[in-house]
Amino acid sequence: MQKENKRRKIINDPVYGFITIPTPLILKIVDHPFFQRLRRINQLGLASLIYPGATHTRFHHALGAMHLMQLCLSSLRSKGHPISDTECEAALIAVLLHDIGHSPFSHALEGKLVKGVRHEDISLALLKLLNKEFDGKLDLAIEIFENRYSRKFFYQLISSQLDVDRLDYLQRDCFYTGVAEGKIGAARIIQMFNVVDEKIVLEEKGIYSAENFLIARRLMHWQVYMHKTNIGLEQMLSKIIRRVKSLMNSENAIPCNKSVLSLLKESGKDFLKNADSLTHFTLVDDFDLWSCIKIWAESGDKVLSALCKMLIDRRLFSTKISDYSFSEDEISKIQSSLVSNYKIKSADADYFLSYGTVSSTVYDYDEDILIKTKDGSLKKMTEISDLPNIKAFTKPVTKHFISYPKIKNRSLKETPKTTFLK
Amino acid sequence: MQKENKRRKIINDPVYGFITIPTPLILKIVDHPFFQRLRRINQLGLASLIYPGATHTRFHHALGAMHLMQLCLSSLRSKGHPISDTECEAALIAVLLHDIGHSPFSHALEGKLVKGVRHEDISLALLKLLNKEFDGKLDLAIEIFENRYSRKFFYQLISSQLDVDRLDYLQRDCFYTGVAEGKIGAARIIQMFNVVDEKIVLEEKGIYSAENFLIARRLMHWQVYMHKTNIGLEQMLSKIIRRVKSLMNSENAIPCNKSVLSLLKESGKDFLKNADSLTHFTLVDDFDLWSCIKIWAESGDKVLSALCKMLIDRRLFSTKISDYSFSEDEISKIQSSLVSNYKIKSADADYFLSYGTVSSTVYDYDEDILIKTKDGSLKKMTEISDLPNIKAFTKPVTKHFISYPKIKNRSLKETPKTTFLK
Amino acid sequence: MQKENKRRKIINDPVYGFITIPTPLILKIVDHPFFQRLRRINQLGLASLIYPGATHTRFHHALGAMHLMQLCLSSLRSKGHPISDTECEAALIAVLLHDIGHSPFSHALEGKLVKGVRHEDISLALLKLLNKEFDGKLDLAIEIFENRYSRKFFYQLISSQLDVDRLDYLQRDCFYTGVAEGKIGAARIIQMFNVVDEKIVLEEKGIYSAENFLIARRLMHWQVYMHKTNIGLEQMLSKIIRRVKSLMNSENAIPCNKSVLSLLKESGKDFLKNADSLTHFTLVDDFDLWSCIKIWAESGDKVLSALCKMLIDRRLFSTKISDYSFSEDEISKIQSSLVSNYKIKSADADYFLSYGTVSSTVYDYDEDILIKTKDGSLKKMTEISDLPNIKAFTKPVTKHFISYPKIKNRSLKETPKTTFLK
Amino acid sequence: MQKENKRRKIINDPVYGFITIPTPLILKIVDHPFFQRLRRINQLGLASLIYPGATHTRFHHALGAMHLMQLCLSSLRSKGHPISDTECEAALIAVLLHDIGHSPFSHALEGKLVKGVRHEDISLALLKLLNKEFDGKLDLAIEIFENRYSRKFFYQLISSQLDVDRLDYLQRDCFYTGVAEGKIGAARIIQMFNVVDEKIVLEEKGIYSAENFLIARRLMHWQVYMHKTNIGLEQMLSKIIRRVKSLMNSENAIPCNKSVLSLLKESGKDFLKNADSLTHFTLVDDFDLWSCIKIWAESGDKVLSALCKMLIDRRLFSTKISDYSFSEDEISKIQSSLVSNYKIKSADADYFLSYGTVSSTVYDYDEDILIKTKDGSLKKMTEISDLPNIKAFTKPVTKHFISYPKIKNRSLKETPKTTFLK
Repeated sequence: MQKENKRRKIINDPVYGFITIPTPLILKIVDHPFFQRLRRINQLGLASLIYPGATHTRFHHALGAMHLMQLCLSSLRSKGHPISDTECEAALIAVLLHDIGHSPFSHALEGKLVKGVRHEDISLALLKLLNKEFDGKLDLAIEIFENRYSRKFFYQLISSQLDVDRLDYLQRDCFYTGVAEGKIGAARIIQMFNVVDEKIVLEEKGIYSAENFLIARRLMHWQVYMHKTNIGLEQMLSKIIRRVKSLMNSENAIPCNKSVLSLLKESGKDFLKNADSLTHFTLVDDFDLWSCIKIWAESGDKVLSALCKMLIDRRLFSTKISDYSFSEDEISKIQSSLVSNYKIKSADADYFLSYGTVSSTVYDYDEDILIKTKDGSLKKMTEISDLPNIKAFTKPVTKHFISYPKIKNRSLKETPKTTFLK
Repeated sequence: MQKENKRRKIINDPVYGFITIPTPLILKIVDHPFFQRLRRINQLGLASLIYPGATHTRFHHALGAMHLMQLCLSSLRSKGHPISDTECEAALIAVLLHDIGHSPFSHALEGKLVKGVRHEDISLALLKLLNKEFDGKLDLAIEIFENRYSRKFFYQLISSQLDVDRLDYLQRDCFYTGVAEGKIGAARIIQMFNVVDEKIVLEEKGIYSAENFLIARRLMHWQVYMHKTNIGLEQMLSKIIRRVKSLMNSENAIPCNKSVLSLLKESGKDFLKNADSLTHFTLVDDFDLWSCIKIWAESGDKVLSALCKMLIDRRLFSTKISDYSFSEDEISKIQSSLVSNYKIKSADADYFLSYGTVSSTVYDYDEDILIKTKDGSLKKMTEISDLPNIKAFTKPVTKHFISYPKIKNRSLKETPKTTFLK
Repeated sequence: MQKENKRRKIINDPVYGFITIPTPLILKIVDHPFFQRLRRINQLGLASLIYPGATHTRFHHALGAMHLMQLCLSSLRSKGHPISDTECEAALIAVLLHDIGHSPFSHALEGKLVKGVRHEDISLALLKLLNKEFDGKLDLAIEIFENRYSRKFFYQLISSQLDVDRLDYLQRDCFYTGVAEGKIGAARIIQMFNVVDEKIVLEEKGIYSAENFLIARRLMHWQVYMHKTNIGLEQMLSKIIRRVKSLMNSENAIPCNKSVLSLLKESGKDFLKNADSLTHFTLVDDFDLWSCIKIWAESGDKVLSALCKMLIDRRLFSTKISDYSFSEDEISKIQSSLVSNYKIKSADADYFLSYGTVSSTVYDYDEDILIKTKDGSLKKMTEISDLPNIKAFTKPVTKHFISYPKIKNRSLKETPKTTFLK
Repeated sequence: MQKENKRRKIINDPVYGFITIPTPLILKIVDHPFFQRLRRINQLGLASLIYPGATHTRFHHALGAMHLMQLCLSSLRSKGHPISDTECEAALIAVLLHDIGHSPFSHALEGKLVKGVRHEDISLALLKLLNKEFDGKLDLAIEIFENRYSRKFFYQLISSQLDVDRLDYLQRDCFYTGVAEGKIGAARIIQMFNVVDEKIVLEEKGIYSAENFLIARRLMHWQVYMHKTNIGLEQMLSKIIRRVKSLMNSENAIPCNKSVLSLLKESGKDFLKNADSLTHFTLVDDFDLWSCIKIWAESGDKVLSALCKMLIDRRLFSTKISDYSFSEDEISKIQSSLVSNYKIKSADADYFLSYGTVSSTVYDYDEDILIKTKDGSLKKMTEISDLPNIKAFTKPVTKHFISYPKIKNRSLKETPKTTFLK
């Protein structure tokens, strides 16, 4: 007892006060380098260039989501649903590790660094690696994570319309960005969770909180995650990676951090099956990428160098958002202007110009939240909400963007303010 | 200077930190008994019986709204709109006094204590009384309050879809009730206000905050202001006043606080023109009403006594809310049950039973918020929002309620737990 | 199960989020009129006349203290200390009811309304009355409340240097007054509690939080509880009660709320033994006192009337605080001035003038907090703290005050702005 | 106007809501790479390894301190002190740039990376570089920064016992670490500032807030800044730098980021006068250091490699704090154990073992805060505070520490869990 007690660790969290790490196994997982790496992955990629407070990490988010899972399970137990200690620990582990497969800069490089591989798949692959190291103690956690466990509510609490992942990241992102109106009533929603037929339902009294959660999520989407400057930032990063990959193919050598280099060469197909590749992956974090960006800023390739310097000095692409697509005419004007001002090849203009669409669906109709009405019956939330046309939330909102540097009549060479070492 | 300085007063406010009373005239108004009375009027009537933290007063709300007006005017000035010190002081006074005409328990007794008179009209009447006392120094404030002043934005900041009144009460009510998800981004909205053609507009970047404000207001409506128990409380209060008025007409005398008595006898028609009546009004506050309720609890009239005891001991009417009206059959069953259980006359059953509708419109289409788009043009918010069908918000949501005591098979006499003095 | 579940109630609290009422018995106690009365007793007496946000009640404080007790016991259980459900419920009830004996305006009228009786003694007497009503189910709670229970830590958590009472009221008072710097680390202190030999100890890592708690308490003492204006308010209230009592003795009749009248006539000696007297007591709340003050403001006795009007219109005694006593000379000058300006009898000047001392001891050496050091030994906090001379905190700080109306050369008759009904 | 208006930028800050950048010159400075670099310098060095929320940066702190300066100057103006727009802008610039000379990891590498140079001196040198670039527009800011300006209160607001630097960092550190009890009443302190004879004084009513500020600062010192694990972290970092410098002298080459390498070679003496050296300095941030640490973790030098891996995987030195010095006996035992367990040379044991003292003075008597008493006279705070023996705060509290890895019987080679690329 005494010994276990010593292992019970408490971590300060400005969002919830304290987070308790409840079991020795979970503490070992938290201490593992795979999880410690999340300390070096920003939760919101480069968004701290827009919201300077948003420097929080995947590490803290994962702990926060685990904390909310503890609250959920404790509330469900108090409502008479039996949950064994084994199930509880497995659910906590599953949620703790759900983001372990994130690339540096989180979503900003998703599917770009290691082409075509989703972070969820990497998370699962790493979970399995860990399970070996921990002698199968993560079996049930993996079962839950893969939604193979019979009591579906565990999986739903990790991944659904209204899960602890979203409940934590909305609160945390709103806290750290300072976007006050993103606040949701997570504590109330958690109190209103119940289980019917092993599925999560929300008691009817919680419906206003759930609606508010949807609206807050939508607000955070457009005000933070898809803020036009953030879209521009992701495009810059994406162009940098594309240029590096292209140079790697054509040229002799490009100076690069070894682990990053190793990742850039990966082909998505076999990546997940290769323990070595996965290990390389777990060595790469935001610091490595930033370090490469600083090295590349000194590269002889003027396109790569310019893009990296722009990012470091925060001379960002200017991004416009519109409900309509941008005309070919407008686009080709910008391309010409880039070519003539920057004295670059036509083909390279694309490295300074991005356009396309972003879209956001607030609510996935197929996974409708189930409401337990006062009379005990179950109804779909879209049916009983009197939020005008909540169904409309199920349609994706799509917006067009165009992103390129504010061109002031000078060549690329003159652009950068920062003098890098030669 | 030194002397004026001494009059510059700072008041602690848990919502905003500090509120500054910026001029000697405003301090005199704050010190006036008409305004000090607001210390004794609860902002949310009896809602603290549901949300025990909600004990805040109209006094603090009025100061808070004035504080937000200061922020608005300071931001507009910094955007290059000239606002004279005289205009500024007048606008602050107008918003400070906008609620001065509230009855005890705020909205809960609106139009019931003094039949058919709206609090806005009483506020105006009192503003005029004060203007006499202050030798016409409130002329411009009254002009703004009555929307007669040419620069319409002053009035709009006091009373419109998106005014400092609402910005303060939503924040304050959400703070004191502890309904976390009611949080709005008032600071951001204020930063996004601008003036075009002397009218308030919102810069386009603020549109998500404005939408969030509408949703939060809707949530507070149904979760707090029209919480089913709150509807029941207002019905109980209303029945008590109705019973007292009926007894006053038929019986000799009913013990009652003199100022309250005086108000109950008022007929709405001449009330506003009669300085004496208005003066009586300014003497009555929540304490007087509670004091009467405690006296009436000992009254010989068993209906009145029972209603008052129920309120004091918090044995409240049970209230059901429904999208559909309640059947006559259901209603008459309840009536019979009340009569037989309470051994009361049929006619008196109505004092224990309320039904009807409540409705809430989140957004008033006629007063659409104007958005200043990035290209400088003005558009109506309902037109450019991509909030699915924000227009639907303009339709009132109406709900049916029914409210009556949980009848446990015993007579009225046995009901009360509290023994009052005889 | 289902039925019990239905009785599990959750209450919104802006300070902690949600407070859970964990058992049916506790819910019955909360619903009892004795406890509901606390809704009508302000936590900080008249301090809302200084800090307008401070309108919170004893009701909410009692619930909050119970909530903290839940956290303490849950933390102690997780550290391996066995605590039975019966003990847990008893401890919660004891803390819930610890303030049930407070007079209207809390401390402001302590020992004055019912002369010489402390609120703790009334609380105990009421606990015993309730125990009868609840068939002895409060036996253990009373045992704990009287510190007769063998496991002393329960009592210490309710009443000691560092108990849940103080932890709640400091947080709550700081929250509602808006005195930001009064913030304490209650969650951390609770995590650091441990039990050795059935006594509460604090783990050494919590020592800085405990010291900060002492300093915050001291700050709240002088900035809120003993704020000079608050001292003046208590003096005004005290003078009013003294005048009424004196008039009651000499005159025929003074209009007064019946329950208040009954209390004023009580002699302290037999009060606690008399069930009738106690019942009268439970009927009196802030509303009754305010109602009386408003009635007395219209009294024919000009001293009483003036004092009451001053309080209602917030024309307060002006109070000076000093490290030194005020000279007899200064005092008699003020007395003369009062007599000549107010045209009152010499003997009555005392009703407008108060002087004396207030004192505050931050730390009671006799009840030193025990610290469990890293090596497992127990030390007294005053011994191991490196807070310079924490021992000095054990000496009371005493200050002299003098309190009287700012006399502007006019008679008492002219003073009041408010015209009361005749 | 319109154009200036467009440059008025607003930045979200979770601590204060919004920070306004008030003038075009200040916006240009914020946009300058020297200032943007602060985005990549953690405010609390490596403390986020202890408090995972503490990921905030010098960038945000500098903006926050500027924001508080705006509040101070605005309050002083409202009290009748004339402050010109030029003075205002200069004061804002001076505080904005006060930390621009911080090394990576802030204080953790102070005087170690560039031996013997204080960050304040680097800040001044960089201020002068910027002044050239901005054509002398920073003259007055520099005059204030160097305390050469006649109106001393500007300097005092930037650097004194109670300056905006401390007011911001205490609030910000407490916010991001989640150490709730570190909360200070900055808003109140700012309201209580006044100016007498061009010096900052505090009005007497603010004395409790100032005392609370001192106590909170002391708490943050021991609970965060000098948390034993934080001391250990600084030692680890320091050992790494020492080892690298030693290897650089003796060996051929050690792989290293170029700018970092350049800095490591600097000798303090001429550093400040050399524009090139300063420019190198402005290119180095936390990312570069982390990148080096990751490279060094793969180094052939097993001491360096082990230290770096320990830091990356968070297998930290264990640190003990004591009021007494550790015995030579204890120390040599640890040394032997390190040598035998790690199979390292005796001389290298010192790279894994640190001991020494840390000390903290809460209050500097020589710079006593001046209090403006109610009667208008000025007194020193230590004289009039009734905080028991505030004078004792002027004595430094010194503690002894010892720091080394928890040795589990295995060699250095086996230690690391992480496999680095070969």
